[in-house]
Amino acid sequence: MEAAGLVARADSVNNVFGRQPGGSAPWLLVGSHTDTVLAGGRLDGAFGVMAALEACRALSDAGHPAAPKVEVVSFHDEEGAAGGGGLSGSRALLRDPHVDELGGYLEIHIEQGPVLESEGRELGVVEGIVGIRRLNVRMEGEANHAGTTPYAARRDAGAAAAKLAWQVRDILHGVDPTMVGNAGVIGFEPGSPNVVPGGATLVVEVRSLSEQSVERACEAVHAAAKAAADDFRCRAMVEPGLVIEPVHMDPRFIETLVSVCERNGRPWRMMSSGAGHDAGALAARLPAGMLFVPSRGGISHSPLEHTDDRLLVQGAQALLNAIVEMTDPLVFDPTRN
Amino acid sequence: MEAAGLVARADSVNNVFGRQPGGSAPWLLVGSHTDTVLAGGRLDGAFGVMAALEACRALSDAGHPAAPKVEVVSFHDEEGAAGGGGLSGSRALLRDPHVDELGGYLEIHIEQGPVLESEGRELGVVEGIVGIRRLNVRMEGEANHAGTTPYAARRDAGAAAAKLAWQVRDILHGVDPTMVGNAGVIGFEPGSPNVVPGGATLVVEVRSLSEQSVERACEAVHAAAKAAADDFRCRAMVEPGLVIEPVHMDPRFIETLVSVCERNGRPWRMMSSGAGHDAGALAARLPAGMLFVPSRGGISHSPLEHTDDRLLVQGAQALLNAIVEMTDPLVFDPTRN
Repeated sequence: MEAAGLVARADSVNNVFGRQPGGSAPWLLVGSHTDTVLAGGRLDGAFGVMAALEACRALSDAGHPAAPKVEVVSFHDEEGAAGGGGLSGSRALLRDPHVDELGGYLEIHIEQGPVLESEGRELGVVEGIVGIRRLNVRMEGEANHAGTTPYAARRDAGAAAAKLAWQVRDILHGVDPTMVGNAGVIGFEPGSPNVVPGGATLVVEVRSLSEQSVERACEAVHAAAKAAADDFRCRAMVEPGLVIEPVHMDPRFIETLVSVCERNGRPWRMMSSGAGHDAGALAARLPAGMLFVPSRGGISHSPLEHTDDRLLVQGAQALLNAIVEMTDPLVFDPTRN
Repeated sequence: MEAAGLVARADSVNNVFGRQPGGSAPWLLVGSHTDTVLAGGRLDGAFGVMAALEACRALSDAGHPAAPKVEVVSFHDEEGAAGGGGLSGSRALLRDPHVDELGGYLEIHIEQGPVLESEGRELGVVEGIVGIRRLNVRMEGEANHAGTTPYAARRDAGAAAAKLAWQVRDILHGVDPTMVGNAGVIGFEPGSPNVVPGGATLVVEVRSLSEQSVERACEAVHAAAKAAADDFRCRAMVEPGLVIEPVHMDPRFIETLVSVCERNGRPWRMMSSGAGHDAGALAARLPAGMLFVPSRGGISHSPLEHTDDRLLVQGAQALLNAIVEMTDPLVFDPTRN
């Protein structure tokens, strides 16, 4: 940051901020995070910090009036690998007086999914970050000898849990074809090849930007769990687990990002983010906006994470254009803060 | 055994034998095992040893000519809790010269399943002990972020394995409605609520007295594994695991036990044993026969294991009657040995 002519500081949780000397609040905060997961790649989220820094340097070099209105940030521990549970830097900023000196937050990030690449699109404007609901499903049946117990006498909790795990895709498709979910964890008890499972556990996760879709999906999973349990003479218990509400990006920021993408002339789309981001945490206090660039093969959190330089540069250019528009008083209205 | 007037000895692996003094080979071996599982019940298989001992004592007390033709046995470590892998006592006898002094093996045991009780039957004549085949199924897909990866782009190994686990009951029912199987062990990798499983493992077990049913079931599980994998764009690998061939009881022993049950006058049935027994091991060298008494609630390997005294006594009486018939030279033909 100092090499780019910015004055840099770290706050108490090690978020690093930098801005051109001589500006005054409110600043448009632009950035992402530089931490990553264990055995991660080089782009999530360092690309967003580098793009912000590069945009800021370009504005400074050009003596552009937007330059002193921008603050670059590298958030601490977005991924949680440092033990803070994830998003700990951006959440700490929500409780820091500095948040009152900010007029909004803008972030560019790799998509971490295959949508943009598979559709041949080069930029994504994020409408919002999906809500997540986890359901901890437990099936209770009766453990029995797998050789001596006829099917008619069984209460096979494993088969009931397996039926539900298999059905998650179709259940969600029936509720909202744009939403996603997962059955990523399953276990049978006692877990022996020759014992009919007496108990089974399964974690079902559902995600959507639509709170209504999340609600309806949870109801449908409940009903399917009960039907699967009935099919195998078991009892289904469905307990709510993790709840993360959907977060919507600021409509004026979205509008600005859309006009930037339109003028850019390359294929782009509106989309929701299926993963969490610092922009999601900050949206609780600040108008926030987000851009995506494609991820090759949809791969992220891996050393194979890659986006072609051309697309990274184009993304940084779009970020720069958005900064210029947003720091125009007509778009970026400090009185809103 | 000595209190019952028998001469007792233990062999090198701690099988305990007892017989009336003065008899000569060949003997009809009658018994079961006195070891049990950890936290097991009092009947599997001690009931079979006690019934044999009681039958032998009754014959001795009556001065019956069958008495010196019987040897009572308590086999060592049938369950494997002592670390021998199960059936280690009866398998050791197969390699012991003493086996050549035996004309056959007769065993009474609790059913360990609910069939006799649920049908109101009081005795079971075992036709044979089912064969077991285990298939180790592995589904290979691709681990992906469960929020950013649309369903169309997924290769969900967990869903494929779950579909197969759910289908086992119907697959086997389609092959042979009398056979049973199990999916008792399953695991998803990496096993995280927010990661689409890239790998999954499942153990499928099938059991039948019919070798043909076992074969056809394994083929059907193979085909279903492949179809489930295709459904989720995964690859299925099915490796053979444990193989235990079906064992048939001796036809003449079966015939004798049937006539004993018929004369007994109470409801009985022919049946296969879904669990392994010493009689199954010994059938490799000796003509063998087995009787079952009901297990309350089908429960076994549990302190709740129970059979009413009336049924235990009736079973021991049937065993005695069978011993008398089998030691008649017309049925129990030493030249066969």
